[in-house]
Amino acid sequence: MIDEVEVRELKKFCNDQGCVYKMLSENDSFFDRFGEIYFSLIHSGIIKGWNVHTRQDANMACISGNIELVLYDRRQNSSSEGAIQKISLGEDHYSLVHIPHGVAYSWKAFGGASALIANCATLPHNPEESIKIALDSKEIPYQWQ
Amino acid sequence: MIDEVEVRELKKFCNDQGCVYKMLSENDSFFDRFGEIYFSLIHSGIIKGWNVHTRQDANMACISGNIELVLYDRRQNSSSEGAIQKISLGEDHYSLVHIPHGVAYSWKAFGGASALIANCATLPHNPEESIKIALDSKEIPYQWQ
Repeated sequence: MIDEVEVRELKKFCNDQGCVYKMLSENDSFFDRFGEIYFSLIHSGIIKGWNVHTRQDANMACISGNIELVLYDRRQNSSSEGAIQKISLGEDHYSLVHIPHGVAYSWKAFGGASALIANCATLPHNPEESIKIALDSKEIPYQWQ
Repeated sequence: MIDEVEVRELKKFCNDQGCVYKMLSENDSFFDRFGEIYFSLIHSGIIKGWNVHTRQDANMACISGNIELVLYDRRQNSSSEGAIQKISLGEDHYSLVHIPHGVAYSWKAFGGASALIANCATLPHNPEESIKIALDSKEIPYQWQ
């Protein structure tokens, strides 16, 4: 497990009319600050390349479809430096994942349906603090199959 | 048009792998404060009954599917008191709607697909400031067909 990464099961209430999905409230003990909320849709079978932020923390939930999320701790001062962590997210595991800055993430949608991921990040989008790392980079010791 | 209701077109970027949907950032001129982010899924053909908040403002976007959103201004001190406003939201109209407290809202999903609505509200959920009004109430001069 990577230090400071947190996975919390989220509540989802459904009936014959639809569902309500809770995600994040300022009253939650693990809420830090609000920077931006945005969504990513990724088609089944697609792998999103590695992304890491130098200041922004991510709070992610997969609302529909399913993804496998892989994290890599590239923080030099971390007790879990170099660790890989895999997390299943989606309709069958509706959870919030907190990804601290400095931890790289990549994901793959699977199961035939496109996956929709919400990120309620602690800072607004800023390309100056966002680093992309190619999927075939030797810097990260993980190979998607 | 109802006073203080705002509709802003949102950006959506798509390619053959998927899409990114922008929603709300603390840098947006119309951002007030963050209380809670949650989602509602509603099946096609279903009408969600009237809801009104006494303190919380809503910021809504329909990420998938389509809804017709109807607003009713029940604020006694509003220049548009008693007005009805209809707004189409969804895949074909990806927009943010700001609904001030005191304005009642109801929606219907249409088009055969379930609709997913995000609400980035200014206050956390609190049943003490949330009022539900039945669809057949005579208080609101609007009849869904």
